[in-house]
Amino acid sequence: MAQIQVFGHKNPDTDTIASAMGAADLLAQQGVDTQAVAQGQPNAETQFALDHFGLAALPIIDKAETDQVVLVDHNEAAQSVDNLAEVEVYAIYDHHKFAFQNATPLYITAKPWGSVSTILYFEYLQAGLTIPAAVAGMLASGLISDTLLLKSPTTTDFDRQALPELAKLAGLDDLEAYGMALLKAGTDLSTRSDEE
Amino acid sequence: MAQIQVFGHKNPDTDTIASAMGAADLLAQQGVDTQAVAQGQPNAETQFALDHFGLAALPIIDKAETDQVVLVDHNEAAQSVDNLAEVEVYAIYDHHKFAFQNATPLYITAKPWGSVSTILYFEYLQAGLTIPAAVAGMLASGLISDTLLLKSPTTTDFDRQALPELAKLAGLDDLEAYGMALLKAGTDLSTRSDEE
Ligand SMILES: [Mn+2]
Ligand SMILES: [Mn+2]
Ligand SMILES: [Mn+2]
Ligand SMILES: [Mn+2]
Repeated sequence: MAQIQVFGHKNPDTDTIASAMGAADLLAQQGVDTQAVAQGQPNAETQFALDHFGLAALPIIDKAETDQVVLVDHNEAAQSVDNLAEVEVYAIYDHHKFAFQNATPLYITAKPWGSVSTILYFEYLQAGLTIPAAVAGMLASGLISDTLLLKSPTTTDFDRQALPELAKLAGLDDLEAYGMALLKAGTDLSTRSDEE
Repeated sequence: MAQIQVFGHKNPDTDTIASAMGAADLLAQQGVDTQAVAQGQPNAETQFALDHFGLAALPIIDKAETDQVVLVDHNEAAQSVDNLAEVEVYAIYDHHKFAFQNATPLYITAKPWGSVSTILYFEYLQAGLTIPAAVAGMLASGLISDTLLLKSPTTTDFDRQALPELAKLAGLDDLEAYGMALLKAGTDLSTRSDEE
């Protein structure tokens, strides 16, 4: 088993899954032994992105299985694993308001930007590391999902700068078409569930 | 008045004063309107550093006077201004354990390194910005103070890498001699106070 499990919030959305994958890879490229996991199954939107980039869903955990963990796309205990108080938080990557308390100094990278996927794009850039194509595709998807294809009021210039770069790395020729299909995949399921 | 006051913890030490100066300058160079202030007078060690680099002590505040603030070298409300809950935290630079809660997304740069001065050295580097000589001198002093001239168990490779670079930028020809004199200046006062 890896030394550090990396996971986002309960009821995972696309940004949570993408940033778990991104943070785990970023840290692994820097010599930290990580495993990306999730607190639940991918929703329909995330599944669309996973299928598009040929990726399996992340292993599902119901509590942290390692002594150290990395939190992405959340920092509040209520959104995290039930045994959070029993493990050491090594790092946090987030874009929400904060309500976090712990016993040891740690890495925190928080920015009030549209998605954690955007934050991770710039972390790779600063570290001079290459984003694998499939990871770039998931980060683009997380960014599209959280900013509604750059149309939400939470969208920043950093999000607008990152998305075309991520799309290029991911080999997404028609970003607009992919983005609309991704958002529609999320909507479709809600519609279908209502009808069922 | 500036738009954002930048300050460290109560009973300021050299790292708190240095990192308030450093964060205020770093953000100002990026177009944020900042003012470095302090929650008290410099101690004897900090005064030695200010005198060496020809700097005035920071203006003293007993509460935040701006709607937005930046916290350096602390994040816990008990170590901060009394009216913290009434203002918006724009950013935090820290190296302590966390117990922080707020209502809005914000910038946090936290790393488990020897000093916040070290963290700021690397923030300047990443942003491609130049550290003014006197600010570099204060950051070197904050780093020396918190790590006891790189001898404390909290010292990391990042601190060891930053100190000689900061010393060079500050024009400190004999880093070891300056560091010993700085630490001695802090000790002298405690001794004198005991005798008085
Ligand atoms: Mn989310
Ligand atoms: Mn998010
Ligand atoms: Mn301090
Ligand atoms: Mn400190």
